[in-house]
Amino acid sequence: MLAADLGFDRRPAVAALGGGHGLYANLSALRRITDRLTAVVTVADDGGSSGRLRKEFDILPPGDLRMALAALCGDDSQGRLWAEILQSRFAGNGPLGGHAIGNLLIAGLWQKVDAVTGLDMVASLLGSRGRVLPMSAVPLEIEADVIGYDPLHPDEISVLRGQARVASTRAEVTRIRLVPQGPPAAPQTLQAIHEAEWVILGPGSWFTSVIPHLLVPELADALIQTRAKRILTMNLRPAGETSGFTPSRHLEALAEHAPLLRLDVVLADPRFVADDRDHLEGYAHSLGAELVVAEVAMRDGTPRHDPLRLAAAYAEIMGL
Amino acid sequence: MLAADLGFDRRPAVAALGGGHGLYANLSALRRITDRLTAVVTVADDGGSSGRLRKEFDILPPGDLRMALAALCGDDSQGRLWAEILQSRFAGNGPLGGHAIGNLLIAGLWQKVDAVTGLDMVASLLGSRGRVLPMSAVPLEIEADVIGYDPLHPDEISVLRGQARVASTRAEVTRIRLVPQGPPAAPQTLQAIHEAEWVILGPGSWFTSVIPHLLVPELADALIQTRAKRILTMNLRPAGETSGFTPSRHLEALAEHAPLLRLDVVLADPRFVADDRDHLEGYAHSLGAELVVAEVAMRDGTPRHDPLRLAAAYAEIMGL
Repeated sequence: MLAADLGFDRRPAVAALGGGHGLYANLSALRRITDRLTAVVTVADDGGSSGRLRKEFDILPPGDLRMALAALCGDDSQGRLWAEILQSRFAGNGPLGGHAIGNLLIAGLWQKVDAVTGLDMVASLLGSRGRVLPMSAVPLEIEADVIGYDPLHPDEISVLRGQARVASTRAEVTRIRLVPQGPPAAPQTLQAIHEAEWVILGPGSWFTSVIPHLLVPELADALIQTRAKRILTMNLRPAGETSGFTPSRHLEALAEHAPLLRLDVVLADPRFVADDRDHLEGYAHSLGAELVVAEVAMRDGTPRHDPLRLAAAYAEIMGL
Repeated sequence: MLAADLGFDRRPAVAALGGGHGLYANLSALRRITDRLTAVVTVADDGGSSGRLRKEFDILPPGDLRMALAALCGDDSQGRLWAEILQSRFAGNGPLGGHAIGNLLIAGLWQKVDAVTGLDMVASLLGSRGRVLPMSAVPLEIEADVIGYDPLHPDEISVLRGQARVASTRAEVTRIRLVPQGPPAAPQTLQAIHEAEWVILGPGSWFTSVIPHLLVPELADALIQTRAKRILTMNLRPAGETSGFTPSRHLEALAEHAPLLRLDVVLADPRFVADDRDHLEGYAHSLGAELVVAEVAMRDGTPRHDPLRLAAAYAEIMGL
């Protein structure tokens, strides 16, 4: 059953981990089946408006948090209008040009209240269907080992620092680290994962939005220990930092960064799975997971998740 | 009677005209006797955060509007917390340093919605006890004729441009003009003045926050034609741009800029009136007004209006 009118006892507690557009798509689906929803968001962005705010104030990058909040905005016209405004950006090239309005509001709130209180205030403003929390209590950087960065030494490993650089590199990422290493999680995040019935990782930029959560030690422990069922939602195609990766190579990269993590469900769209299906199924089984292949991409062929199709797939997996 | 629990039929419709700290104090008093309250705010500020935003985006200066909204915030803890945050400023000297959070939010809203809609959205966020509107639909500059600006020619008239310069000059202001001349009013403002039972001018910086309203032709006409009773609330002392002015000289300056305006009540604190009482009373009568002298200053002697005392004075004047 897929409906916004599930009774309260039917609405599962879900924690969704990710960042950027992948998490936005995931939350746009999940908000249709539950409001007992916690988004756990990467805080390693160092590009654009968020990067400028980090430089000026040494705060958590607000951009991915803002996007997640916008995805959860209420269905009433006020909630939608506020979401649209917080997502919009100042025009021009002046001191404010390019800054998302919501980033400035969140950064402003953080001058007066702690990070989680500020995010809860914006959630309340938006009539949000759920809560948005940072993956870590401190701002992070992503550092990546890549191969093929230096064309003169195509087999050598180079080290790239910064999410924006890693996400856009054409070199092959083999490993990522967080700087500082072993950052603290936000306590509310751990609680949400322990109390969840379902935890969902992905979709999203694999190395810079999905895997980073597994490198926060307390968060990784919580993901391993929670009684929640764990779903890994695959991307629709290899792109950017995973160009050329097969679906099973995506799983492999994840497992390399979190060897103890077991999964219950790997959800993938048939077009991405295609030739790799047997291999992917085998790899999923080795992680303890069932492979669920379902049409979750936009009907018009654009490589984005369709919120309603994705919601339907989740509803079926969760037995709603 | 002074109470927040006046029945609806006892709560008068009030329009309060001014800007800056004077209007903030006035609204802090008026919100205690009514929520049928419209603040009509000067939009000529060109200093500080507002000045920077005007330069970057050619918008109405949001600062005085933000202060008025904060003054009207709801009594619940959420309303107060939002007001405190919107009033607070970014730290440091970077691109955002010194900007009031609320100014950025209002400027951001104005990228997507019209000025009045944006102000209404912030009012709703704050649980505001009333509405805040701009005095004019377009950003304005203040131009002043001053005497004594040039120490070598102390009797010559000089022209100063810009609210920040006029408000801080030591020269004597004799006349102000708006640039552009004869700007349009916001239609909602005219409606509020026509529907008001009481209209209050002042307190505030006389030439840069109180008199400018009288130079918006439609607004001046509305003030002259409305059936509302008109109160002029005097400052507690001559300061800044009216240094050395007697109370009656304040009235004279007002009348020089709006010869057709009649008043019903001139409200003044006894300490300011002092020696000038007879003269002030005569001048008030010549404008059609009764002089009401009441203790409205802070008890500790600081030259600010005490919100409760001022509310009590208004309640008595309005027969509540």
